[in-house]
Amino acid sequence: MTRPVVTLLTDFGAGSEHVGALHAVLAAGAPGVDRVDLAHDLPPGDIRAGALVLARLAPLVPGAVHLAVVDPGVGTADRRPVAVALAGGGAIVGPDNGLLGLAARALIAVGAVELPPLPEHLPATFHGRDLFAPVAARLVAGEPLSELGEAVDPAGIAVPALPEPRVGDGELAAEVVMVDRFGNVQLLAREADLAAAGFRRGDRIHASTSDRRHPATVARAFGDVARKGMLVHIDSHGLVAVAVNGGSAAQRIGAEPGGTVSLGRWPVADAG
Amino acid sequence: MTRPVVTLLTDFGAGSEHVGALHAVLAAGAPGVDRVDLAHDLPPGDIRAGALVLARLAPLVPGAVHLAVVDPGVGTADRRPVAVALAGGGAIVGPDNGLLGLAARALIAVGAVELPPLPEHLPATFHGRDLFAPVAARLVAGEPLSELGEAVDPAGIAVPALPEPRVGDGELAAEVVMVDRFGNVQLLAREADLAAAGFRRGDRIHASTSDRRHPATVARAFGDVARKGMLVHIDSHGLVAVAVNGGSAAQRIGAEPGGTVSLGRWPVADAG
Amino acid sequence: MTRPVVTLLTDFGAGSEHVGALHAVLAAGAPGVDRVDLAHDLPPGDIRAGALVLARLAPLVPGAVHLAVVDPGVGTADRRPVAVALAGGGAIVGPDNGLLGLAARALIAVGAVELPPLPEHLPATFHGRDLFAPVAARLVAGEPLSELGEAVDPAGIAVPALPEPRVGDGELAAEVVMVDRFGNVQLLAREADLAAAGFRRGDRIHASTSDRRHPATVARAFGDVARKGMLVHIDSHGLVAVAVNGGSAAQRIGAEPGGTVSLGRWPVADAG
Repeated sequence: MTRPVVTLLTDFGAGSEHVGALHAVLAAGAPGVDRVDLAHDLPPGDIRAGALVLARLAPLVPGAVHLAVVDPGVGTADRRPVAVALAGGGAIVGPDNGLLGLAARALIAVGAVELPPLPEHLPATFHGRDLFAPVAARLVAGEPLSELGEAVDPAGIAVPALPEPRVGDGELAAEVVMVDRFGNVQLLAREADLAAAGFRRGDRIHASTSDRRHPATVARAFGDVARKGMLVHIDSHGLVAVAVNGGSAAQRIGAEPGGTVSLGRWPVADAG
Repeated sequence: MTRPVVTLLTDFGAGSEHVGALHAVLAAGAPGVDRVDLAHDLPPGDIRAGALVLARLAPLVPGAVHLAVVDPGVGTADRRPVAVALAGGGAIVGPDNGLLGLAARALIAVGAVELPPLPEHLPATFHGRDLFAPVAARLVAGEPLSELGEAVDPAGIAVPALPEPRVGDGELAAEVVMVDRFGNVQLLAREADLAAAGFRRGDRIHASTSDRRHPATVARAFGDVARKGMLVHIDSHGLVAVAVNGGSAAQRIGAEPGGTVSLGRWPVADAG
Repeated sequence: MTRPVVTLLTDFGAGSEHVGALHAVLAAGAPGVDRVDLAHDLPPGDIRAGALVLARLAPLVPGAVHLAVVDPGVGTADRRPVAVALAGGGAIVGPDNGLLGLAARALIAVGAVELPPLPEHLPATFHGRDLFAPVAARLVAGEPLSELGEAVDPAGIAVPALPEPRVGDGELAAEVVMVDRFGNVQLLAREADLAAAGFRRGDRIHASTSDRRHPATVARAFGDVARKGMLVHIDSHGLVAVAVNGGSAAQRIGAEPGGTVSLGRWPVADAG
């Protein structure tokens, strides 16, 4: 038996009434549908983090309707409210501010509509509850996308800027995209970048956000380094990440989303 | 197809085992029922915040049974455990300490029972798991309210005190009812209060918790002010709120739940 | 009508994308199954806390498949991935690092298998998503345990160390196992330990983590002490706990998970 699925991804905070409002609207408007919370603890307003998380989690639930709301520009002309149809069935609903673009590419957008604006008498600050969730409920109930708004070019759905890492011989500098509860530091760099810098599994390198260097080992798993040892590895989403076995890499090296982490050879050659 | 719904609202904290226990009891006692988390991150013991959130979210799920537990007086004679039947079907179950009163009025209580006390051998500290959740499961399964306890007057369900704002010409002072993750500051004041103070959309005013005044604009949406600009608006629940476009109003003006925010004309006339 | 249930218990953090990934895999792999979040805010890596919470919540949902992931040694040879069949139906899936042992005993393990390792090309750091959740989905769909791995002795499932309290006449010292959002301090001691120390309901005692003593009353419910008064009681899980009526005991006495709380007679006899 299949069962229709709606997923939810926001920066509203787990357990907040804002998330509760989305669930309430969906429970009433799409009874019997399975609601899956993908993430609600995204850094407030971090469209790029939301876009990356949506793009990696949405493929796990083929055919689902994805309701995504990280919407710092809510109610402004800065971004259009849209719904995007996906090649394998399902859709994405949310603000066209970059949040939807990576998932729309990964899952192949085959159509899109701009949703009509809310009437002026409605509040302008909670499109998640008043606009996007009702649309998601209608989509999961089988209403065709074309009924929901004016067709727009699906290739025009905005994607967030993803700065490329700087790679040299024995050097890699990449932006921090996310830090999780364990202090794992995820970088905007991939396995090929690590290889291009000349770093191989087992190499001793450093991972740093300032002149203060912290030694680490290029490894596959936490257990490949000693307890409290730091490792640089390819994380479960295919990105380069810095972690401490039984500790917080973010704390050790002082990394924050949006900052830069440099990887380099260890020991650091004397500059003198 | 309709599907029975139970909602949950607590101050237990999202992801806590206390919330997990409620879900487990409901999953076992009311299989096939849709469980909707309305909010779990209410400030600990903040009955009034819980009452307001319940009253605004419960109407979104007509006919649901609402399980609400913000219960600092659990196990004492200070409050009765009750279940309240609603005009449109559904019910509210929880402590009669003010938490249920606003929703009971909004959704029109048509009956109520006082639930019998737990036997003395059971713990006295977790009525959510041991008393309220089992009752909610029985109600959603269709058991009549009258089977669950002794009838009491539904008009007697306690409501929390909601201090009125002080309104003058060009002056409005109101209590902070809630601060969300984004730093939005929600006040116990409505659109009519803003109008009575003489504030119109586009007006420059200040919003302050002390002698340090912070300029703001009366606006409809975040995008109506510059980035990092502060606005005073009617939020998505119909309450006056202070917000910063792309920032935290709570942090800027130093607002906390239970404190007072003053709005006044800007620039402030010289007192000398 | 019964409905199959999968529960989830992790230290990933409520609202995190890691929890979202588990839900997504289960929604796709086990459609129509009720997913129950037992807890996600366990202290990171705290296997013992996870084991205790799982053992007390799992019995609330008889017959469920329990997916439990607190896994600091993920991807190492330190622990086996296992699935355990329970006497009353249902199963537990997760790392055999102590997390599963108390629930396996409480619900009577009648069989167990070691799950085959993930292929080397898969990431080694997210067995929750890549190994345990898919196995839980197969189990709840009715696949027999024997299909999932090699049989191992269910009596060999690891249990965490639970230090016994030190009990003397008028003295009880016990380890703090958990502190919740309200500042309730749960100790590794039971009602019999309190009795063995000679403490009776109504007694004045102290509860302390250092030489600074804090008076408390042995009581049944919060309401048995004055507002802001401290009580020592048997909590809703049958463990000795320290609490403050309308406040945080953890803050008052400075208690943290893994620390020790001493209870003794009050007033403290002069040492001189």
